[in-house]
Amino acid sequence: VTYCLSIITESGLVIAADSRTNAGVDYVSTYQKLFDFSRPQERVIVLCTSGNLSVTQGVLNLINQDLRYEDRVNLHNLPTLYDVAKYIGMKLREVQDEHRAYLQRDGIDHQCTLLLIYSQGNFIQATEETPFLQIGETKYGKPILDRIVNFQTSVEAATKCALLSIDSTMKSNISVGPPINLIAYYRDSFEIKHRLQLTRGDAYLVKVRHLWEKAIREAFDSMPSIDWS
Amino acid sequence: VTYCLSIITESGLVIAADSRTNAGVDYVSTYQKLFDFSRPQERVIVLCTSGNLSVTQGVLNLINQDLRYEDRVNLHNLPTLYDVAKYIGMKLREVQDEHRAYLQRDGIDHQCTLLLIYSQGNFIQATEETPFLQIGETKYGKPILDRIVNFQTSVEAATKCALLSIDSTMKSNISVGPPINLIAYYRDSFEIKHRLQLTRGDAYLVKVRHLWEKAIREAFDSMPSIDWS
Repeated sequence: VTYCLSIITESGLVIAADSRTNAGVDYVSTYQKLFDFSRPQERVIVLCTSGNLSVTQGVLNLINQDLRYEDRVNLHNLPTLYDVAKYIGMKLREVQDEHRAYLQRDGIDHQCTLLLIYSQGNFIQATEETPFLQIGETKYGKPILDRIVNFQTSVEAATKCALLSIDSTMKSNISVGPPINLIAYYRDSFEIKHRLQLTRGDAYLVKVRHLWEKAIREAFDSMPSIDWS
Repeated sequence: VTYCLSIITESGLVIAADSRTNAGVDYVSTYQKLFDFSRPQERVIVLCTSGNLSVTQGVLNLINQDLRYEDRVNLHNLPTLYDVAKYIGMKLREVQDEHRAYLQRDGIDHQCTLLLIYSQGNFIQATEETPFLQIGETKYGKPILDRIVNFQTSVEAATKCALLSIDSTMKSNISVGPPINLIAYYRDSFEIKHRLQLTRGDAYLVKVRHLWEKAIREAFDSMPSIDWS
């Protein structure tokens, strides 16, 4: 299982992803799920993937192939993000069409989602009202986003919230796991400002996890008990 | 969608359930999901239901029919909780067998779960290591349980935690909703000690929700920001 999320606010964008992939609980490994196709100073494009690994890798391969030829339509010459999303959706359909019949025959899930291009190749964008998108194992980490994030949230706070959202998910579902990849982008800067990989024992990750546990427990203890009468 | 949960600790048991039922988003209504089949001083049996409403109601009907006849095996004469769970599992299979073919033909989900008897009629119990069980929309409310509850938790704290778990779920999924039904049982007492229904505007519910939001936000603000370097 995967958990990737992105938070967009008036000042920028945060993208975060875990790195665990499993084919059944007896085959768990680490794969990057966050891919940077940016052209610094000109455009920033980051893809997050979730779902069937052979399909997502197939899509990335097709995208990379097109990038080798300047005369092909590719991620570096498409004029708008809308076109970019449509292009990736088409690549996704192409790979799935190639394998669907064979995967379905053996009952293997061919679904795959990119942030946020659906498995069917259509797509949506985040908005001011709901300034985050999630793919993969989304539910455990949603309550903290629902409570904290809005369009006015700073990039720093959004990063912290993305990390706590992933941490909650890792605690409740062991098939989501580190390293956690994080990217921060400031509006209209056209380059990725910060990029970080937090491994399992990372000092900041350990510290925040510990402090958060403690804070939640203290908050819980401070709540009034129910009056049954 | 439903969310019911139960927490068992060394001192007792808490059961909590929401009351929202929907057949599509355009037909949302309120149904009790928590049913008391206790015989005070002798045995306490509470059922929580989730899933296809016609199936769960069918099961409850069969159970009630058997209770009308003393010479029938029923919830009031079965000797152990293991037998009770097996009996309910059988009733569940009986109702599903009757309707499965017709529901499947029209693509209607016939699954239904009781706390915790699976839709297939088999069942599990909570243990000291994992002292809670959930059915229905379980994921949003699991992180708080994972962080707070253990077998030594008091009944009062378990009640508070069950309520916060349901509240998180209601915030993230509108198809889970009040009134919330709560039951508290103290070990070896053989009668339900407390029973409460919290409606939408209930003063305690509103207060706890507000305080919890505030506490989470303060906890969040107190977390150290990430150091990108």
